[in-house]
Amino acid sequence: MNAEIIGIGSELLLGQIANTNAKFISTRLADLGINVFYHTAVGDNSERLKQVIEVAESRSDLLIFTGGLGPTKDDLTKETIASTLNKKLVYNEEAMENIQDYYKKTGAPMSENNRKQALVLDGATVLRNDNGMAPGMAVTANNHTYMLFPGPPKELYPMFTNYAEPYLLGQLKQGDTIVSRVLRFFGIGESRLETELEDLIDQQTNPTIAPLAGEWEVTLRLTAKADTKQEADKLIDETEKLIDARVGSYLYGYGETTLAKEVFSLLSDRDWSISTAESLTGGMFSQEITDLPGASSLFYGGVVCYSNEVKREIGVSNETLEAYGAVSEQCAIELARSVRERYKTDVGISFTGVAGPDPSEGKEPGTVFIGVAAPSGEKVVALNLAGNRHAIRKRTVNHGLNTLLKLER
Amino acid sequence: MNAEIIGIGSELLLGQIANTNAKFISTRLADLGINVFYHTAVGDNSERLKQVIEVAESRSDLLIFTGGLGPTKDDLTKETIASTLNKKLVYNEEAMENIQDYYKKTGAPMSENNRKQALVLDGATVLRNDNGMAPGMAVTANNHTYMLFPGPPKELYPMFTNYAEPYLLGQLKQGDTIVSRVLRFFGIGESRLETELEDLIDQQTNPTIAPLAGEWEVTLRLTAKADTKQEADKLIDETEKLIDARVGSYLYGYGETTLAKEVFSLLSDRDWSISTAESLTGGMFSQEITDLPGASSLFYGGVVCYSNEVKREIGVSNETLEAYGAVSEQCAIELARSVRERYKTDVGISFTGVAGPDPSEGKEPGTVFIGVAAPSGEKVVALNLAGNRHAIRKRTVNHGLNTLLKLER
Repeated sequence: MNAEIIGIGSELLLGQIANTNAKFISTRLADLGINVFYHTAVGDNSERLKQVIEVAESRSDLLIFTGGLGPTKDDLTKETIASTLNKKLVYNEEAMENIQDYYKKTGAPMSENNRKQALVLDGATVLRNDNGMAPGMAVTANNHTYMLFPGPPKELYPMFTNYAEPYLLGQLKQGDTIVSRVLRFFGIGESRLETELEDLIDQQTNPTIAPLAGEWEVTLRLTAKADTKQEADKLIDETEKLIDARVGSYLYGYGETTLAKEVFSLLSDRDWSISTAESLTGGMFSQEITDLPGASSLFYGGVVCYSNEVKREIGVSNETLEAYGAVSEQCAIELARSVRERYKTDVGISFTGVAGPDPSEGKEPGTVFIGVAAPSGEKVVALNLAGNRHAIRKRTVNHGLNTLLKLER
Repeated sequence: MNAEIIGIGSELLLGQIANTNAKFISTRLADLGINVFYHTAVGDNSERLKQVIEVAESRSDLLIFTGGLGPTKDDLTKETIASTLNKKLVYNEEAMENIQDYYKKTGAPMSENNRKQALVLDGATVLRNDNGMAPGMAVTANNHTYMLFPGPPKELYPMFTNYAEPYLLGQLKQGDTIVSRVLRFFGIGESRLETELEDLIDQQTNPTIAPLAGEWEVTLRLTAKADTKQEADKLIDETEKLIDARVGSYLYGYGETTLAKEVFSLLSDRDWSISTAESLTGGMFSQEITDLPGASSLFYGGVVCYSNEVKREIGVSNETLEAYGAVSEQCAIELARSVRERYKTDVGISFTGVAGPDPSEGKEPGTVFIGVAAPSGEKVVALNLAGNRHAIRKRTVNHGLNTLLKLER
């Protein structure tokens, strides 16, 4: 069963909102093993919507519509599909009661056009709306399934999960189970990863191996089909072993994780506290760590040591600043050591470098030093990063996180 | 000129990312007066992409493609369009140099498949990529314009603004000049802004007034058509006066600015330096200021005072922490005062509060105090913010910036 998700609403085409409904439904359909081959967005225009339906019928089995079920004149999804399928719209008792309940609860006066929301396609299975008035619906005709959902995510998401998925499971043939696993890498580029794994990617069909370049990292998605979840997992395990043997040293996590979350777990596991001294990154590293709930259990504090006076105040020596400058290995290590001592933490980490656009101390943008003072000793990572100011800072933070992940006990 | 935006990548159809590129490009095209009638997303599959191009050619003049320009085998946008248009792919010198520069800088070995990224459609206008390797391109054929962009937003957005928009302006017919002005507001919600301006929004046709809800602020876009830029500007000026009279006190800037950029200008104009003490925001405020080039001229440093020990170390009294707690007006003002003194700056700003998800010191998430110590005196802003952990932190930073914008000399 191949699906197409059709978003209806001029706000999509004007760029006022992103089509996050299509993203949500796609992940749910992937879990059900239903292929999504197309997303389409079209405005509140009956003619163009009709044409979109025709195209979708020619290439997809399951047509999922989101939006345009509201009470206003702009909302014409039901009407257009009814006319395409040559079906009537009929009043649905349960939907009408749901709408009346809503008005009773809020005490607002019910307007006549709200009655329009209780109209459903003749013969449709009604999908209850627990968080709003417009019901969803599903109907099959001419070998296609048409499903209609309201646009607001807070109505659509629970409706989809609670009522649409059981409906779809009933429609699906038993047999295929699809399992995906996402592997996250840091420190290796997309093209190098693919070169290393070229033969595997070309040969594998079950699981398939799909490289994805994220904004700051590279991921691989392994997807297997089998009769049971266990069998699919086993197929993925076998392929992951082959991948690990080649590029396992760059693998840092699975699924929805991030470098910051992995560092958080590692520090928690070891019961290590951390403090920061940020020059180049200006607070970005601390910000990422403190974005995680519970950060106060291990992050005590830090210094944003932008000026040399502030660097001196923490503990960098005049000699170091004069002989090597602020952008130096020596400064990085003194910062990490000093902040660790001042805040009495297990780990101190520091960032110094040139974000650009102009050189500083005669050093080019992208020149970066990360200092770490930890129970296992001190180290400095020297980097030469590409990109604009923001990219250099962001990459530096990621390299810092990755350095912590590699720390020995 | 009617446009269709075609996103290419299986990650869209699997729901791993939302199609935010389509959203971004739609807003830019709306500014140029180009109608967007359709968005489409399709996977990394040449056959299906070909079919999507055929459909798009039948209904749109301008076809905008995003994604699939990378170095891997999955990336087949250029190849498919070349075959559809019966055009060759040719090496582009400038793009090749750009790629070589990138590798020279990072010192990473260049893999053979990166050369593929320097291939462009024969006869295309190349759109420079300042933040990555894959160049964009634009070509006209058979009464259609085809524009290709890399998928990563950090490459696409600046490429679109800096190179694609001038190209499109050149393609648009002369005569009608379309001028847009974006007004940025902070501290007023979208629905309240719309209510205040309802009659203006309904009556105005030239310029049109379009409210746009950003993630953290509200903007209005005024778009006027006229024979000359001067005339269009005059129409916009007149309408802006009417808007200012009603909601001018919330207006903080125009166009591509941000609260942080406006604060930067204000501090520079007054020759004021600043230091920070961040508990709740964990470095986010400092990070936003230091993201701006030249920040070191006015931002000296700050403390991320996450634990109470670190707050004491800066200068918050034991009495304050015991009597009022860390989340208090008193703590906020002591932090701002202490950091200003320690780093000898003109302004000190502090952030303390509860980000959640759990309450702290018996105070609910969203309880926030911002302290400011400035030449004109000291003040505290107490807030009660809604949203999840990240939203509370981000809104706090924005309120801090807005508080600085309102500072008297």
